[in-house]
Amino acid sequence: MVKYLIGIDVGGTSVKCGLFTTEGELKHKWAVTTRTSDGGTMILPDIAESVKAKLWELGVAKDDVAGAGLGVPGPVGPDGIVSVAVNLGWGRKDVAGEFSELIGVPAVVGNDANVAALGEMWAGGGKGARNVVMVTLGTGVGGGIITDGKIVSGAHGAGGEIGHFNVNPDETICCNCGNAGCLEQYTSATGIVRLANEELAASDEASVLRNDEVTSKNVWDAYKAGDAVAARVVDKFATYLGRALAVIASTTDPEVFIIGGGVSNAGQPLIDAVSAVYRKMAFSACKDTPIVLAEIGNDAGIYGAAKLALDAAAE
Amino acid sequence: MVKYLIGIDVGGTSVKCGLFTTEGELKHKWAVTTRTSDGGTMILPDIAESVKAKLWELGVAKDDVAGAGLGVPGPVGPDGIVSVAVNLGWGRKDVAGEFSELIGVPAVVGNDANVAALGEMWAGGGKGARNVVMVTLGTGVGGGIITDGKIVSGAHGAGGEIGHFNVNPDETICCNCGNAGCLEQYTSATGIVRLANEELAASDEASVLRNDEVTSKNVWDAYKAGDAVAARVVDKFATYLGRALAVIASTTDPEVFIIGGGVSNAGQPLIDAVSAVYRKMAFSACKDTPIVLAEIGNDAGIYGAAKLALDAAAE
Repeated sequence: MVKYLIGIDVGGTSVKCGLFTTEGELKHKWAVTTRTSDGGTMILPDIAESVKAKLWELGVAKDDVAGAGLGVPGPVGPDGIVSVAVNLGWGRKDVAGEFSELIGVPAVVGNDANVAALGEMWAGGGKGARNVVMVTLGTGVGGGIITDGKIVSGAHGAGGEIGHFNVNPDETICCNCGNAGCLEQYTSATGIVRLANEELAASDEASVLRNDEVTSKNVWDAYKAGDAVAARVVDKFATYLGRALAVIASTTDPEVFIIGGGVSNAGQPLIDAVSAVYRKMAFSACKDTPIVLAEIGNDAGIYGAAKLALDAAAE
Repeated sequence: MVKYLIGIDVGGTSVKCGLFTTEGELKHKWAVTTRTSDGGTMILPDIAESVKAKLWELGVAKDDVAGAGLGVPGPVGPDGIVSVAVNLGWGRKDVAGEFSELIGVPAVVGNDANVAALGEMWAGGGKGARNVVMVTLGTGVGGGIITDGKIVSGAHGAGGEIGHFNVNPDETICCNCGNAGCLEQYTSATGIVRLANEELAASDEASVLRNDEVTSKNVWDAYKAGDAVAARVVDKFATYLGRALAVIASTTDPEVFIIGGGVSNAGQPLIDAVSAVYRKMAFSACKDTPIVLAEIGNDAGIYGAAKLALDAAAE
């Protein structure tokens, strides 16, 4: 008999939901608006209501659902409790317990960046691997580390917080996290724009970046078109990221690094630039570890959440 | 009925052996000389012979032995094969298979630094924890990462190769590993001596370090006695190590960091210096992670090897 999994990716503006078979086939996906008002108290009831309605529409009975997984934008402790999710208005919350109660099937929760890494391992750029590191380059920089098929959440939910590696001890400008010199400050979309603005201010050199709004996409387009200022920005970006990956290689030594998030739309030139630095800096045994692009994009969260539910059901 | 475990720590000059109960009690320990001649072909037969003789002496029957674990100074792949152990004269070798054949009980193998971390978690500074990072500061710098009670060996046996983190991209002097700027170059016993010699050469400032041979121990003694040159050396040491621990905190986020190896004999002043840097650089959720001294010293290897055998027997 076919069993189903529910994968849920809770974001600050919308919640992505997917119905999967236990073999990993995405049968149906839909979205729910995130109601962050009233301290986010309606978010889980809204999702539960929508999932129940959709399962009824699709003719999937409660007994056919092996479990539900949720990825949330906040740290998840070893006890499975979400300690805070600022964008949702949540403080400390037993997300899995509450959602399981609401929907009547077993539920499990993980940090969204970690869950996305699990999704890419299950169905994307890390398919077939059991040891994966994913870096998500978006407005911020998130990460997920999987060893032996399992998310490394860490003792304080900070496992895979790659965006907050110190990569520049001399930095004076603060990161959102309160420290200074974090990887996120140089390799997020925002970080790339900052690097570009600094580079443009440092000289009068001609650059197509002076013609338009400076965005991460424009920097990569200019780089691909041979713009020298953009090349210097990409060089800094690649140096910080390549070095950070080399450090991770000497920590959990993954089979593959997966680069995702909006910035990774720059494609193969980004991978090439980062790989060149990585190959130079990595410990000898790890120099050939592949660095690849994420493959399932925005669906990584729902795939990973479904896999989390599958693993929990198997335990 | 009491079951026993054999824990074996294979070093370049001697092999430490221990007989443990499955409850973790060390009943007996002894050592065997490492015969590295003839490509190290006699090392495993020598150990097997010695273990058998000792078990006979102690009246422990073959059926009472649950298994044997070996820690070896080289990378161990995901398939359990040792790819190389330079100090023993070994190339690629199925250590567990060969030893199991020789002794007639199940055997399992791990990298020595990883195994020492497991030992400290089982019986030393990390007792009770399931997520531990150990850094061994000796002639070189080794490391071991444990998540969810298991060694992270990595895809190429480079899991926990903390000594080969790049901590100084501007370094021009090469590390033994072929890269430059590795943590080992600044925080091993050799690295501390190098930092001290550089500091002494940079000025004519009075220092007790000018009176005697510069050793890691002398640097720490001078530091404790208030020597200003030694204080600058310790400051550099602590900055490199504290920053590296902060990066690890954002990777696997352990419950506790354990510092071992000969350099750690410097004691609490070393912990205090490193902790001060760590607290400043670590991601907010991890700032309070304890950094402690290793507790079982040279026995960590045999304890960890026995625990490895215990875990393998339980699988």
